[in-house]
Amino acid sequence: MNRDHDIIVAPATAPGGAIAIVRLSGRNACALCDRLFEGSGRLAEAAGYTLHYGRIKDGERTVDDVVVSVFRAPRSYTGEESVEISCHGSSYVISEILRLAQAAGARMAEPGEFTVRAYLNGKLDLAQAEAVADLIASSSQAAHALASQQMRGGYSASLEALRERLLSLASLLELELDFSEEEVEFADRRQLRETLETIAREIDRLRNSFSLGNAIRQGVAVAIAGAPNVGKSTLLNRLLNDERALVSDIAGTTRDVIEEQVNIDGVVFRFLDTAGIRTTDDRLEQMGIQRTMASIRQARIVIYLVAADALGVDSAVPPPGFSLDPQQTLLTVVNKIDTRPSLSLPDGVIGISARNGIGTDALCRALRDCVDTSALFHGDPVVSHSRHFQALSQARDALSQALTMFDSLPADLLAEEVRSVTAALGTITGHGTITPDEILQNIFSKFCIGK
Amino acid sequence: MNRDHDIIVAPATAPGGAIAIVRLSGRNACALCDRLFEGSGRLAEAAGYTLHYGRIKDGERTVDDVVVSVFRAPRSYTGEESVEISCHGSSYVISEILRLAQAAGARMAEPGEFTVRAYLNGKLDLAQAEAVADLIASSSQAAHALASQQMRGGYSASLEALRERLLSLASLLELELDFSEEEVEFADRRQLRETLETIAREIDRLRNSFSLGNAIRQGVAVAIAGAPNVGKSTLLNRLLNDERALVSDIAGTTRDVIEEQVNIDGVVFRFLDTAGIRTTDDRLEQMGIQRTMASIRQARIVIYLVAADALGVDSAVPPPGFSLDPQQTLLTVVNKIDTRPSLSLPDGVIGISARNGIGTDALCRALRDCVDTSALFHGDPVVSHSRHFQALSQARDALSQALTMFDSLPADLLAEEVRSVTAALGTITGHGTITPDEILQNIFSKFCIGK
Repeated sequence: MNRDHDIIVAPATAPGGAIAIVRLSGRNACALCDRLFEGSGRLAEAAGYTLHYGRIKDGERTVDDVVVSVFRAPRSYTGEESVEISCHGSSYVISEILRLAQAAGARMAEPGEFTVRAYLNGKLDLAQAEAVADLIASSSQAAHALASQQMRGGYSASLEALRERLLSLASLLELELDFSEEEVEFADRRQLRETLETIAREIDRLRNSFSLGNAIRQGVAVAIAGAPNVGKSTLLNRLLNDERALVSDIAGTTRDVIEEQVNIDGVVFRFLDTAGIRTTDDRLEQMGIQRTMASIRQARIVIYLVAADALGVDSAVPPPGFSLDPQQTLLTVVNKIDTRPSLSLPDGVIGISARNGIGTDALCRALRDCVDTSALFHGDPVVSHSRHFQALSQARDALSQALTMFDSLPADLLAEEVRSVTAALGTITGHGTITPDEILQNIFSKFCIGK
Repeated sequence: MNRDHDIIVAPATAPGGAIAIVRLSGRNACALCDRLFEGSGRLAEAAGYTLHYGRIKDGERTVDDVVVSVFRAPRSYTGEESVEISCHGSSYVISEILRLAQAAGARMAEPGEFTVRAYLNGKLDLAQAEAVADLIASSSQAAHALASQQMRGGYSASLEALRERLLSLASLLELELDFSEEEVEFADRRQLRETLETIAREIDRLRNSFSLGNAIRQGVAVAIAGAPNVGKSTLLNRLLNDERALVSDIAGTTRDVIEEQVNIDGVVFRFLDTAGIRTTDDRLEQMGIQRTMASIRQARIVIYLVAADALGVDSAVPPPGFSLDPQQTLLTVVNKIDTRPSLSLPDGVIGISARNGIGTDALCRALRDCVDTSALFHGDPVVSHSRHFQALSQARDALSQALTMFDSLPADLLAEEVRSVTAALGTITGHGTITPDEILQNIFSKFCIGK
């Protein structure tokens, strides 16, 4: 991860639009831009938060008519002097501006390098920086709410509150050491234990929210499982088509569609393709079924699909050929109900006709009800990164250690345990710790160019 | 084509980038934006060419942190009051901002509607407006030079000069009518004829430039033809791969690649896939060969590919199984020369090994030499739109008519012919004529959203 503060340049918009933005950041970025820009005055002398009309020149040749935004340190995204060149969205124009900026002394930014600088300049903490990438990738209301809350620092603030309580406890314990010969106890042991237990519960609550946060961020995994020919693919196509119709009225905003994702009432569901399950001697089909079982294990929700014409006269649904973990939800769905109009289904079983679109609304509601997003929309901190979950688990382990040995540990060792809890929590935001380059590299390499 | 001047809104950047721009234009666009924007002051009171940091709000909920650019009429692209909202490039954020802007009274812009307004407000003429779309689509130096020159009005200026000379001639002829009883001639007939002939030559020069302009704008069509198995596909892959290597060092700037386009020294060549030509009774193969012949007829350049191992001992290249028009160029190329190292080729025949990349540089130079772009880079007006070519041909026909009947026509009929030449020329820029809605529709429907 590059910690140099030279001038970096990158396109900040996707190729193919009417307008493109090329972004520069670093000390004297305006003066560098003056070497390619010809306007009514020098950008180096312009005030921050002003726009400047002019031309990008390659010697005598005009490359494009542009509008340049000037940002002065520290009032910019990176906290550095920055320039954004708004040009026509031609791939040739963009590549020429990048070439000219590099010839004038800038270097191409690495993915996420603008945000790295914002972090190094104290504009954002690590958790907030990670949320910037999540916000850019967000395509649903829930994913947006999750990323927004984290980017605005709500999650960082609650972590910081925990960390500060722990720090003051550790300080009190360490103070006792200075007076150790007098055997005073600054930290009331009963209160101390209670505080540690409270913090442990709060960390547990955060860790428990990871299952929701991760599902929201990545899309809620749903496996559609069942015997061959019960209509699994028809159901998936029906769900996809219904959503397409919902979003198609907003022109120009649709990202490259990943075929298996469906947005239901603000939450993205990620459907896992599965092969039909049955007993078979066919080696290839057995491998397909093994993959199905793997999909089922990954899924948060499993739709167990049965065909109405396969039910007995008593409408009893046969048991699925797989078992689920307690945190997984099973939705039993009977397809092709239009072929048996007299069928009465047991409670909790949803009847649909995937081909005719009957009952799919009820199925969507049932899927959506499996995901309780109320915490998210009430602003409760929700953990969505496995890096954070791991740090919280590490903190929780250290805390368990401290609580288990609480009565037997002397103040100095207890303080040490508490300090290791704060250190683990600190890695999430980068507060009170120096973040190693590998971790920065790992976080920011997932960013797009120009952010 | 909508000529209302209500407030329009559209995303101006392609989806999928770090940053996105949502653009609004129309009277009181700032006041409309104030209904969704919360910053340190009101945009409606902000000066033009200033930037404003703040938040897009949906009631109490923050949708995104944004920077808003304010443009005051007439100092904007459209000539109207305009606002550009720079937000995070999330598809959800973009769709929310569009939704909120529409709820506040804006309507979604049609493709090209910002540029339509720039045209209607006199910021650009029609030829310049068409060049904006060309500039955005330009991916090579030559296409960029062509679009730039037209957008900056160089081509419009030369058309306008022709039109003004014709207008003053028509006026002189019409003046004679007012004095018809006195039989004066304000327009010297010999000078008049010379001027019309000069203008005819200038129009011919412009019409002749269309072949180059169109090839540059659309890509120079090249057919690779030859018998089966001479290595046509291998050559195409070689050309594509060589180019890929050339452009791959600029990250994030490559558009969706159309596989068959290759940029050679600033000019895009469009390779047409062809089936091998041979005599066959196979019905399906015959259809393939028919398509090949159609590709050859479309092409500006035909590469006639022969395999070295198919040549006689005298190295004589067999004649191609097709004939070309005079304006088409034939490049005879012998592939697989590495299999016959002792081979000596006739003059003008290029020897290559597509598999090993031998000789492909020379082939690229030969292709590039077929396209004389010197006019383009010297700033001579070059016609690149078939709409313009048609208007020029119409003008030329009227001019021929006038010249043929020159001596027999009375002043009023001659003036009428001259006026129909100016009218035809006027349709190109939209000067001196009211452009019908169908033509505007046709021109601007090819634009992208947000421009």
